Amino acid sequence: MEIIKPRTLSGFMELLPAQQTYFSAMIQKLRESFALYGFTPLDTPLMEAAEILLAKGGGETEKQIYRVQKGDADLALRYELTASLAKYVAMYHGRLTFPFRRYEIGKVYRGERAQRGRFREFYQADIDVIGDGSLDVINDAEIPSVIYRCFTSLGLKKFVIRINNRKLLSGFFELTGVGEKSVDVMRAVDKLDKIGEEKLSAMLMEDLGLTQQQVTSILDFVTYKGDPFDVINKHRGGNELFDLGADEVETVSRHISGFGVPEENFKIDLSIARGLDYYTGTVYETRLTDHPEVGSVCGGGRYDNLAGYYTDRKLPGVGISLGLTRLFYILQEQELLNSEAPSAPADVLIIPMTDDLSHAVALATSMRGEGLRVQIHSEGKKFKMKLSYADKLNIPFVVFLGEDEIKSGLITVKDMAEGSQTTASAGILTAGLAEKVKLLRDKAPIKEK
Amino acid sequence: MEIIKPRTLSGFMELLPAQQTYFSAMIQKLRESFALYGFTPLDTPLMEAAEILLAKGGGETEKQIYRVQKGDADLALRYELTASLAKYVAMYHGRLTFPFRRYEIGKVYRGERAQRGRFREFYQADIDVIGDGSLDVINDAEIPSVIYRCFTSLGLKKFVIRINNRKLLSGFFELTGVGEKSVDVMRAVDKLDKIGEEKLSAMLMEDLGLTQQQVTSILDFVTYKGDPFDVINKHRGGNELFDLGADEVETVSRHISGFGVPEENFKIDLSIARGLDYYTGTVYETRLTDHPEVGSVCGGGRYDNLAGYYTDRKLPGVGISLGLTRLFYILQEQELLNSEAPSAPADVLIIPMTDDLSHAVALATSMRGEGLRVQIHSEGKKFKMKLSYADKLNIPFVVFLGEDEIKSGLITVKDMAEGSQTTASAGILTAGLAEKVKLLRDKAPIKEK
Repeated sequence: MEIIKPRTLSGFMELLPAQQTYFSAMIQKLRESFALYGFTPLDTPLMEAAEILLAKGGGETEKQIYRVQKGDADLALRYELTASLAKYVAMYHGRLTFPFRRYEIGKVYRGERAQRGRFREFYQADIDVIGDGSLDVINDAEIPSVIYRCFTSLGLKKFVIRINNRKLLSGFFELTGVGEKSVDVMRAVDKLDKIGEEKLSAMLMEDLGLTQQQVTSILDFVTYKGDPFDVINKHRGGNELFDLGADEVETVSRHISGFGVPEENFKIDLSIARGLDYYTGTVYETRLTDHPEVGSVCGGGRYDNLAGYYTDRKLPGVGISLGLTRLFYILQEQELLNSEAPSAPADVLIIPMTDDLSHAVALATSMRGEGLRVQIHSEGKKFKMKLSYADKLNIPFVVFLGEDEIKSGLITVKDMAEGSQTTASAGILTAGLAEKVKLLRDKAPIKEK
Repeated sequence: MEIIKPRTLSGFMELLPAQQTYFSAMIQKLRESFALYGFTPLDTPLMEAAEILLAKGGGETEKQIYRVQKGDADLALRYELTASLAKYVAMYHGRLTFPFRRYEIGKVYRGERAQRGRFREFYQADIDVIGDGSLDVINDAEIPSVIYRCFTSLGLKKFVIRINNRKLLSGFFELTGVGEKSVDVMRAVDKLDKIGEEKLSAMLMEDLGLTQQQVTSILDFVTYKGDPFDVINKHRGGNELFDLGADEVETVSRHISGFGVPEENFKIDLSIARGLDYYTGTVYETRLTDHPEVGSVCGGGRYDNLAGYYTDRKLPGVGISLGLTRLFYILQEQELLNSEAPSAPADVLIIPMTDDLSHAVALATSMRGEGLRVQIHSEGKKFKMKLSYADKLNIPFVVFLGEDEIKSGLITVKDMAEGSQTTASAGILTAGLAEKVKLLRDKAPIKEK
C-alpha cells in the first residue's frame, strides 16, 4: 500500500495528550465559571449559508473566510461566534426568554497568513447577555467578575481587567470639538498602547487634522494617571452623552467589588477604546501583568444592537470573547502549565502479575466505582516496561497485583512522585487514593512563576 | 438596513437552550465515563488536507465529503474521527506511549441527502485503544463495560450490547466451504436483522451461489437460540481461525461480568457481523430494548491495523463509536429527556426589590462562592414578570430581596416546584440550597418510561 505522509495543516493546533489534558481542563474550568453566572451553554453549527455569515460584509472578513461549496449551496465556516449568536437570537426570538445569557466555547476559522502564534482554527470562548429592547447596566458591572473568576479558576492571578466607556470617550471628543471625527479619533486612541503618545499625537494632528490644543486635551484625558473620577467629574455636565457614560462607568465601578473582583485585578482606564465600531458603551480589555507584550487576551463590551442584519428588533447586549487557543499557546510558551496538575490519562495503573486477570479486573471495576480513573496494563511486556509506562504518562499511582497480594487480600500501591509503597486492603487503599487524587484534581492547570 | 432572513442549514442540529443543556450534560457524562477507563481526551482539527482524509478512498466517502478550497490548498472537513486518529497516531508515534487510549467527542460532516433524523453535521463520540504491534484481547472485554457505564450514566438501562467475533464467523464460513466468499457472506449476514431469514437465504443462494445445505448450516449457526457456547464448542477444532475466534469470544465473555456489566445488558450474538471490512475480531452493537427499530446506536470492534495509509507500523486496536446527535434525536423524539434533570441556566434567581442592588450583588457573589449558579434579575420589569422569567426557564429557586429582608438579615426563598417559601439567614439558606441543587444535578439527563 502506498503511504501518505501524515501531516496537520499549518495554523491548526494539534496537541500531544498531556498538553491536550491541560487544554481540556481549561475549557472545563471556563464552562464551570460561566455556569455560575447563569449562562446557558450553546453549540451552534460551524457552517452556515455564506450570506448569513457575510451579512456584516467587510473586506477582511470576506478574504479570511473559508468557503465551502456543496452542490449549489454557497456555505462558509464561521470566523467568530457573534454572527452565529445574532442569527440564533433573531431566529428563535419568540422561544427564548430575555435577558438571554449564553456562553459558547467553540472553534472558528480564519484563513489568515500562518505565523507563529497565529491560528487558522482556534477556540473562542464567548459570553453575552442579550436584552429584549433594553438591558440594565448592572450587567456591565457583572462581566468583569466573570472574567476574574475564569482567570483565577485557570490559575492566573496576575492580570488586570481594564474598563472604559465609549459614551464617555465620544462625549469627551464632542466637548473637545472633534465630535464629527469621533469614530476616527476613537480608532486612533485605541492604538495608544501600541504606538505611544508621540505617534498618536502626530496621527491625530496630521491624519485627522486636530489642533495642538485638542490633542493635548484628549491626551491629558485618556492618559490621566490619578483617580479617573477626578477627571471624569471635572467634565461632568459638559454634554448628555458624556454624563451618561460617566454614570455608567460609575455604576460599574461601584458594583465591581461587590461582584468579588479585588482592587488589583481591575482598573478604570480612560485610554481603552477597542477597535470595533460595534461597541457603544462599556468596553473591557484584560492583560497579563507579566506579559504586556501579548496585549489583551480577553476583551469585549456593550453594544446597542446584536442582530440588526437579521431582525428589526432591538437587541442590546454586553459580552466578552476569550481567544483560548492563543491564550493557551502563550501560557505554554511561557512554561506556565502547572506540572502539579494532572496530565495523565489515569490516576491508577494496575499491573497484574498473574496470568488470571480476574482479580485485576475486579479491582479496576471497584476503583472506578469510587471515581478513580484506572487502567490495567495487561500487555505482554516486562514489569519494568509497565512501570515505565506509568512513569512516561505521569500516572501518579501504580498497583501491583501478584499471587501474594491476591492470597493475603492486601494490595501494594506505589506513589510514583514520592517513590513510597503502601500495603493495605483494597477498600482502605481505594479510599486513600480517592482522597489523594481529589487533591491533585484541585490543582489549577496554570501556575504563574 | 436590509434584513437577511436568519436560517440554519438543513441537516445541522441547532437546539433551544433547555434541550442544549441536556445535550451538553450527555457529553459531560460521556467524558467522565471515558475518563474512568483511562482514555485521554483528544481534539483533532475538523479540517485536513483532502488527500489525508481521502487516503482510504471509496466512492461514498468522496461523494459525501465537504471540500474546502482556500488558495491552492485542497482541504476537506472530516467525515468520521477514525482517519484523524490514524493520522495522529502515525504522525506522533514516537511521542506517544502505547497502548494508547484516547477518546474524542467532536463534530463530523457528511453531505448526505437531508432527511428526518439524518444529520450533515453531527457528533461522534469515539474511544479506541491502540497497541504498538500487538494488543491483548482483554481490551476487547473491557470495551462493553465502557459502553455500559456510558449508557447508565446517561440514564439508560434498557439496552443490550451484542458481541460477536469475525474470526469466529470467517472460520465458520471456511468450515462450511464458503471461505473464498467470506467477505460477501459476512456482509449479507450483517443484513439479517433488517431483512429477515427468508430474504437472507434467498440472497445467499441466488446472489452468492451457496447451496441449500450451506445456507442452512450458516443460518443454524448465526441464529442459534441457546447458549452460544454450545454451538461454538460443537465446531471447535474445525480450523485455526475459528478456534482463535472462539478463544477470543470466550475471554471476552469470561471477563465482561468482572468489568461490571450485568447479564441483562450483554449478549454473545453470533449474527452480529458489522458492515465494515476493517474489523477483524470482536465486534459490538448496542440496541435500545424498547426501540429495536432504530438499530445499533453504538458499535465498533477490533481491527488489525489502524493507520496503514500513513505508516508501515502495525497498529492494532479496538474501539467503538457512538453517534451522539442521532441518539439524542431519538431520545428527544421518544420524549425520554428527564424533566427532573436540570435544564435551567441557573439554580437561583435573585429578585432585588430595592433600588440599591448592592445587597443582591453581595448575595449572588457569596452564593456563587458555594457553587450555586446564580442570576440577578435587575431589569426594569414588574415583579410578576420576573417570577415568570424563573418559571419559563425552570429555575428551581427564587430569592426575594426587599427592604424587610435587608433590615432583618433574613432572606426568603421560593421553591418553584413545591411552591413553598422559606425564610432564613443567608448562610443557612445558601447551604440548604446547595444541598438541594446537588440532588437535582445528580439526576441523569435521560429517563426511560
